[in-house]
Amino acid sequence: MKKLKIIVAYKGTNYHGFARQPNGITIQECLEKAIFDLTGQKIEVLGAGRTDTGVHAKAQCCMAILDTKIPITKFASAMNAKLPKDIVVQSVEEADENFHPRFNAKRKTYRYQILNSKQNNPFIQDIAYFYPYNLDFQKMVLASIYIEGTHDFKCFCSSNTQVKSTTRTVYSLNLKKDEQGLITIDICGNGFLYNMVRIIVGTLIEIGRGVIPPDDMKMIIESQNRNLSGPTAPPQGLMMYNIEY
Amino acid sequence: MKKLKIIVAYKGTNYHGFARQPNGITIQECLEKAIFDLTGQKIEVLGAGRTDTGVHAKAQCCMAILDTKIPITKFASAMNAKLPKDIVVQSVEEADENFHPRFNAKRKTYRYQILNSKQNNPFIQDIAYFYPYNLDFQKMVLASIYIEGTHDFKCFCSSNTQVKSTTRTVYSLNLKKDEQGLITIDICGNGFLYNMVRIIVGTLIEIGRGVIPPDDMKMIIESQNRNLSGPTAPPQGLMMYNIEY
Repeated sequence: MKKLKIIVAYKGTNYHGFARQPNGITIQECLEKAIFDLTGQKIEVLGAGRTDTGVHAKAQCCMAILDTKIPITKFASAMNAKLPKDIVVQSVEEADENFHPRFNAKRKTYRYQILNSKQNNPFIQDIAYFYPYNLDFQKMVLASIYIEGTHDFKCFCSSNTQVKSTTRTVYSLNLKKDEQGLITIDICGNGFLYNMVRIIVGTLIEIGRGVIPPDDMKMIIESQNRNLSGPTAPPQGLMMYNIEY
Repeated sequence: MKKLKIIVAYKGTNYHGFARQPNGITIQECLEKAIFDLTGQKIEVLGAGRTDTGVHAKAQCCMAILDTKIPITKFASAMNAKLPKDIVVQSVEEADENFHPRFNAKRKTYRYQILNSKQNNPFIQDIAYFYPYNLDFQKMVLASIYIEGTHDFKCFCSSNTQVKSTTRTVYSLNLKKDEQGLITIDICGNGFLYNMVRIIVGTLIEIGRGVIPPDDMKMIIESQNRNLSGPTAPPQGLMMYNIEY
């Protein structure tokens, strides 16, 4: 038996998220089916984290334990031959005995893209949230500094989840804007609550719109009140970007 | 009557090129239909150049002459409400009386993208040619310098076309490669022969593969022989990038 570490990129547009579920086709299911087609083994593919319906990944990190005669150097291409074209295995390597994609993850980075321009861009419309109204980018940058650090982020957690602790550490939150109006928000932390990145982005958009003053971000975090933060930004702008172990 | 200059971006994947034709849906047809839906007028939309099946445009420049009460500032958004989502009008402005998108074009820039990596990238696979084999990028750069300037480019012209002169001026040809293996080739000239950019790229790929030595590019151009240049690179990597007037 071999323990494989599988890095997968996918465009989530046509999938009901990563995790297997009865009501729609998922990334996990496609990966498991590809491995079944290759090896005849029904195994579970574990991911570093779930991604919701419509959310993308540049580098989801997965694990599979299986028995195969396919050389490890050929395994990524072999899987890609069986996968739909919007799911692409980037690399496969043999993992350490103790490796676990979720429990061993030290830092996770998510990227959220907002296209803030008058008209959409057909080349990125599936992976960016198109927002054609005025956003004051400097206000968003000012507000973002309150998010870095270790805080109780209950205000950015979907109310229907149960977790022991809502305290997380955000190592960095970087915003940039290019000349096409594409705003890229990279947020790196030790872990994220359910919908945390999308609610942070939704709050930054309210600040960019002028609805919430930038310095209120501090008070919103301290309030631990989900009703004071902004709406959950739509899934298509979000991408699981990098997992470090 | 108003003469409108319409800048359009489109992903050509699902279209039979720009120019109207009986056998498949085209960009021109979609633009004309959108204008008909808005104004009730059956008019012709002229483009700066044709793009083939599967070829994209970041900024195709079009012209339409019509009578409309829709304010010019709202016309782009009005058209986008009628267009499929992979065709997006970027801007509409009133053009000069003498403006013609094809005859007045001074400089055209095309971009060709090659993804030279082991595995594909689901976010750009529709707009880059995936080439997973070894390419010596430095050889491609060395060969490219022979293309700049005014030359008879008959060797890069599809044999089934008839034009008066096959002499064109290439102002610049720039290649860059990023850390993901994405090779971007930007070529700017006063005009291009049919399939010229794709044959130049096909020849650069033969050079990158080591099949043709870089310095042979000079001899290939001088030969004026289409049989000595490389194959026509596939359409999905090509994008009409910019037109200057």
